[in-house]
Order: sequence, then structure tokens, then C-alpha cells
Amino acid sequence: MKPHVRVLGIDDSPFHFEDDRALVVGVVVRLPSYVEGVLRAWCEVDGTDANDVLSEMVIRSRFREQIKLAMVDGIALGGFNIVDISALHERTGVPFATITRDPPDVSGMENALRSHFPDWEKRIAMIRRHPLREVKTDYKSIHVAQVGIPAEEAEELIRGSTVKGVLPEPIRIAHLIATAMETGESRGRA
Amino acid sequence: MKPHVRVLGIDDSPFHFEDDRALVVGVVVRLPSYVEGVLRAWCEVDGTDANDVLSEMVIRSRFREQIKLAMVDGIALGGFNIVDISALHERTGVPFATITRDPPDVSGMENALRSHFPDWEKRIAMIRRHPLREVKTDYKSIHVAQVGIPAEEAEELIRGSTVKGVLPEPIRIAHLIATAMETGESRGRA
Repeated sequence: MKPHVRVLGIDDSPFHFEDDRALVVGVVVRLPSYVEGVLRAWCEVDGTDANDVLSEMVIRSRFREQIKLAMVDGIALGGFNIVDISALHERTGVPFATITRDPPDVSGMENALRSHFPDWEKRIAMIRRHPLREVKTDYKSIHVAQVGIPAEEAEELIRGSTVKGVLPEPIRIAHLIATAMETGESRGRA
Repeated sequence: MKPHVRVLGIDDSPFHFEDDRALVVGVVVRLPSYVEGVLRAWCEVDGTDANDVLSEMVIRSRFREQIKLAMVDGIALGGFNIVDISALHERTGVPFATITRDPPDVSGMENALRSHFPDWEKRIAMIRRHPLREVKTDYKSIHVAQVGIPAEEAEELIRGSTVKGVLPEPIRIAHLIATAMETGESRGRA
């Protein structure tokens, strides 16, 4: 892999039901694991602004031109604020992927959307637009969808930025930061 | 150096004159550079709670027992909220150091304290308690004071957690996080 390859990892903070918004953290890593930058934004809990927030975060970043792949942890931020990687790639010019550790319970998610969201059809269409495929890692499988980059190149960048476990460093560190900002200290599996 | 050695780096966020408090970020790194945890607190701008805030942050952390050295960027947080590494070591049992990139302008700082703070004598005494000494690195010198650990061991941990430039990774990354949380994106020399 070329030297000085940079990837961006994005995760959101845990939130409470009464919260209006969730913190969104981006971490720029030079492969394999050198942290070069940190980005911060907020999105509405259960809102529809995830794609506006993420595209603005990337477009405003001084790293924009250098990011070979922007990886989002999961297919939604702040609850059911669905991420549309096609829209994100189109608006930013940067290849985007979603990475999910556990096999996502798509039908459970769709049922929840149907029960609680008047605009459930739009949200479900956004989820179905990018079916996840299983990608083997040394540790266990992850589930990936990507746009703007061939699957094998995305997988190379994911593997190239993974040090331990299954999560690429920028997502793992974004998770640690987002959790700490919300709770005082990072916790959990990342 | 033994495997699984962990150090903590602490930095504060930039702040505006009208702000009451500054964000304080701690990053736990396993040498040389693997980010294991992130901590978050706040301290008063120009206040006197830096030592309470930092000792509480360390005491509450699940990494407390494992931290071989806690390094603070500079000798004060949130402006003139002076850090007393002797008090911190005494309260937490963890060795503490301050690390300053540029030679600190102690007499300028003392003049500012005399002009603006009724309790200037106490703050100046806290600064004078731990004279900084110059430590050569591959890149340029830094200025260090430490308590609870021999100078040569502290320097070994500083060198062992420095990847690029002069700042140890936990301080460099804490700086990136604190700046991004305040401004949206990390900037500057770290």
C-alpha cells in the first residue's frame, strides 16, 4: 500500500431518550494507526440530518482531499438517523463505507421504523439501498457496504487500518472519544 | 521496557475569555502508541480546581492502577489554573509529570499572576515548587518536571511514547481531541 494513506472513521456517542442530539466524532488516521486529526459534529437523535452532518464534516475538513475512505460505524447515527453512503459519496467526492460488527438485524430495524416513524418508507429504502456483505478478518467477520471504491480496495484499507480485534483504528478511537465525552470515560468493546 | 506499559497524557481545550470552564482530556496509551482509553473532565478557567479535577479523573479511571506516568501538557490548565504534581502524586499514588514544549516564561507568568490574581503568592509558590529541566529529544528539547518517579525513568517513558516530533502520543492525541471538541476540527502543532 502507498505511504501516507489516510482513512476517516466516524462514530456517535451513546445518548439518552431525552437527548435531542448525539455527538458525532471523526478520526483521521494515517495507515496503519497514526492519529492525524479529530473532527466533531452533532446530529439529531432519530432525526434525518446524518447525511447533511457527515457531508459537511468531511467537506469542511482540511483532510478532505486526502481521505481514501470514510468509514461509519453502523448504518445509522443517533438511533435511527440513517446514513446514506451513496448520497455522502456524491456530495463529498470521498468513498464512503459502513462497517457493522454484528450482523445487523435489518428486519427488526424495519419493524421499529414502521412502528415509530411516519417517514418509515424513506428510511427503510435508505437502509436497503446498500446491502451489507460479510467480510472475513483474522478475528471474526464484519459487515460492510461501500460506495465510490471497489470492494477489494475498501477491504484492503479496512485491513490496513486494523491493529487489534475487528474494528479499524479510526472507528475504534472515534468510539473511545465519543463515549468518553458523553460519560467521562471510554468503555465497551472498542 | 516491559510490555503493556501504560501512560496517561492530559491537555485542555482552547477557551475564550468569556468561558467559565475548559475541557480537560486524558488519553491512555499502551506504549508506544496504542490508544486504550479516553477520559474527560472540566476545570475552571483561571480557577484553582486543576488538582481536584485531575486527581478525581485519575482516581475514578479504571486504568488508575496501570498508569506508570501521568503527563500534563504545560504547568497550568484553563489559563492560570496551576497544576501541582506533588499534590497529584500524593492524592492518586500515580507518578505525575508536566511537559512543556517551549521554555516557559516563568517570570512573565509570575508578573501576570501578581497583576491579576489576589492569591498570586500561592499560585507562584505552586509553579516554583517544581522547576523544569531541559530534556533533549531527537527533534528538539522539551522541559520536564516529575514527582513519584526517578527522572531517568520518566524520560524513558516520555521517549517510549513519542512517535513523531517532541510530544508523547497521549498528550499529542489529547490535544487533538480537546481542540476538535472546542472548535470542530483539531488544528495546530500537536
